[in-house]
Amino acid sequence: MGELKDLIKVIPDCTRMSTKQDDLLHHGKDKSSYHPVLTPDIVVFPITTEEVKGVVVFASEKGIPVTPFGLGTSVEGQVIPILGGISMDLSLMNKILEIRPNDFFVKVQPGVTRNQLNQALKPYNLFFPVDPALDATLGGMVATNASGTTAVRYGAMKDQILGLEVVLASGEVIRTGGAFLKSSAGYNLTGLFTGSEGTLGVITEIILKVYALPEFTATLTAGFESLEAASRAVAGMMQNGLAIGCVEIVDERTINAINQYKKMDLPEIPQLFIELVGKEYTVMNDLDVVKKELELQGCVHIEYASDKEQRERLWMARHEAAMAIMAINPGKRLMATDVCVPLSVLPSAIQRTREIMNEYGVAGAIMGHVGDGNFHAVFGVDPMNKDDLRKLQSINGAIVDYALSHEGTCSGEHGIGIGKIPFMHKQHEDLIAIFKSIKKMFDPNNIMNPGKII
Amino acid sequence: MGELKDLIKVIPDCTRMSTKQDDLLHHGKDKSSYHPVLTPDIVVFPITTEEVKGVVVFASEKGIPVTPFGLGTSVEGQVIPILGGISMDLSLMNKILEIRPNDFFVKVQPGVTRNQLNQALKPYNLFFPVDPALDATLGGMVATNASGTTAVRYGAMKDQILGLEVVLASGEVIRTGGAFLKSSAGYNLTGLFTGSEGTLGVITEIILKVYALPEFTATLTAGFESLEAASRAVAGMMQNGLAIGCVEIVDERTINAINQYKKMDLPEIPQLFIELVGKEYTVMNDLDVVKKELELQGCVHIEYASDKEQRERLWMARHEAAMAIMAINPGKRLMATDVCVPLSVLPSAIQRTREIMNEYGVAGAIMGHVGDGNFHAVFGVDPMNKDDLRKLQSINGAIVDYALSHEGTCSGEHGIGIGKIPFMHKQHEDLIAIFKSIKKMFDPNNIMNPGKII
Repeated sequence: MGELKDLIKVIPDCTRMSTKQDDLLHHGKDKSSYHPVLTPDIVVFPITTEEVKGVVVFASEKGIPVTPFGLGTSVEGQVIPILGGISMDLSLMNKILEIRPNDFFVKVQPGVTRNQLNQALKPYNLFFPVDPALDATLGGMVATNASGTTAVRYGAMKDQILGLEVVLASGEVIRTGGAFLKSSAGYNLTGLFTGSEGTLGVITEIILKVYALPEFTATLTAGFESLEAASRAVAGMMQNGLAIGCVEIVDERTINAINQYKKMDLPEIPQLFIELVGKEYTVMNDLDVVKKELELQGCVHIEYASDKEQRERLWMARHEAAMAIMAINPGKRLMATDVCVPLSVLPSAIQRTREIMNEYGVAGAIMGHVGDGNFHAVFGVDPMNKDDLRKLQSINGAIVDYALSHEGTCSGEHGIGIGKIPFMHKQHEDLIAIFKSIKKMFDPNNIMNPGKII
Repeated sequence: MGELKDLIKVIPDCTRMSTKQDDLLHHGKDKSSYHPVLTPDIVVFPITTEEVKGVVVFASEKGIPVTPFGLGTSVEGQVIPILGGISMDLSLMNKILEIRPNDFFVKVQPGVTRNQLNQALKPYNLFFPVDPALDATLGGMVATNASGTTAVRYGAMKDQILGLEVVLASGEVIRTGGAFLKSSAGYNLTGLFTGSEGTLGVITEIILKVYALPEFTATLTAGFESLEAASRAVAGMMQNGLAIGCVEIVDERTINAINQYKKMDLPEIPQLFIELVGKEYTVMNDLDVVKKELELQGCVHIEYASDKEQRERLWMARHEAAMAIMAINPGKRLMATDVCVPLSVLPSAIQRTREIMNEYGVAGAIMGHVGDGNFHAVFGVDPMNKDDLRKLQSINGAIVDYALSHEGTCSGEHGIGIGKIPFMHKQHEDLIAIFKSIKKMFDPNNIMNPGKII
């Protein structure tokens, strides 16, 4: 412990190092239900790549674990320092280094949040589309290959990242990719670091694609008699090359929770939340095609809005879903499954998920990004209640098993962290040895976020 | 040599092994000007993953190089077996294994060509967009992370690949990714193998995204007084979120070559070739926006077509550009630079490229995928003429240097192969040690396409 004091040599400002109980507790957990608190021994707040490098070299020499931390919004335990050591809080590295409106890219430090970036982009009529619901740091979003509501249109994080600066366990600082929109120059290390959850190095700079803000947006909610009917309707819409920005699903139980939480009276039936984005003439014409398709698929209730206030009201049910589930589970933490399956499997996977929840007598909600085949079953859980945890683990396991046996993946967007390790082993059994070799190559002493992914 | 006969044990059909001079010569070159012929010792034509594995295990045991070969359309010497050994021709592994129209993916063997796939997709009203001009095998396109005219809309190969089956140097057969549209489950090996040019393993199966065929396409050619004015107009169009399918540039010298080659009388000024794709109402409205933007940027000549025949006539100049350059350089081979720069750098990079060619007194053409900032200077070269080769190498070097000193990459889409190795070292000096470690990890005996990339 005493030796950690020597970190002052690399972080030359005692206000940016902390062993206060509050700070340790804050950096010992994320939004997951895993290991409620496993505190680091110290939290450091570097402000430059040089400082990050100093900390990593220090940690390497002494064999101390380093766990990068952004805003703590990970949901699979990614930022929990399971072996203690140093929590490296990157939230002070929050500078937008460059906005290049004519080149459609920005350079940012890892602690910049997506909301912060979008505020800064507004004057240029640009935006960064990836939206994992909560505000998160872009560094964290790179590290987990986050996605969310807009992936159906713009892709996941991996599709946005042009280049990275990374501090390796050796202390070496490398730059992958660059400020160009395309490249075929050597092995794709940008892609390798994306989704590596801090296990291969610390991301200290990110070059991201940005996009023209859509001129016009229309929001549509469409109610169905069953979740399966709703998910079937999605496939129909994807066939047509329409200007779809999002296609989200929310089940009747979630709507019920939202009605309680927000004192609303939304119809308590499964709903699709659809956004069309683009030029006004495109959106208005596509809207007719979508409405016809929805009716064809047995939609029983449609609401439509194009002005901002009305659109936000319609979206509230989707945006507040997680908070509403939390509200009807007071004192509990959120746990979400995260499978992604081929679109044709989606209706049966959602139906099977509901059956599994019924079999276990658990009242979870179902929601998700169904345009990609990615959906979540969401539960409240008391992490101190072992029976409760075990039951939800069994439910998660059964849902993942169904997905894996139907060409799906155990994680569509949340990553592996601590929670998904056994499932990933099942899914990619033949790759584990390679994952381990890659980890060993970049981090031979296993100090970079040890115990995550593998 | 004698020991190569033992390959009959793994390819149990003597018609699928060849040491005939014609076959050796054919597999000793590609479309590049490098090492005109360096023949393999034997060509094998496996038809199953099992056979590929058998050949790789055989080669590993005996330390014999294995170079995968598709249609030989690579342009940086990727398929040239510089150390001899086994050329593994995958053209017989040309089965489309699965078309899943409702899931928007296909599973193919690596020898399937993009034209073959698109023929098979037509009845489903789907298509595979990546178009590197020549017909090529999809395996080869994965291996070089190819792109081409449609990347501005759909992205490069790396954006299309959901999963791969790969035979490693150890003989192990692994599966990366899967049939899902998104995943955050472990290190992104799919991305690592994409663009690895056969140096990390042999790709034996590919899961690819496919797309709804655009309902309507409009083609536009726009002539400008200078290449720089044309490239400046591109940036304006990218700002607007329009339904742009391609934005290509062709310079006046290329148009002149095309006029000679095709006996046409196209106006010999720099031209943009623009395609708008989508619903008819979207395209027709976007067309007006594009035309206004082009006029604003000083466009002096516009032609427009929406029916298939007329569109093909307009596109011919772009499609036949490479052939036309070959025709005015009889007996020579094609050599193309391949830099990609930020859009704001494009006008000056193209201007500098023209200056460099003038300084060396070389009459090359300029064309490219300017919506991505990727353009080519194209020359005819006599590979036996050392002076000629040296001069073009110097030109290439000067163009790459300009790109690298202006945030560009030495290869937008052609890959590294033999020809770009020194440039890639310059560009990614800090990554070379990592590239070598990755290579060593997957291929400790350096038998997989040795001498390429690193």
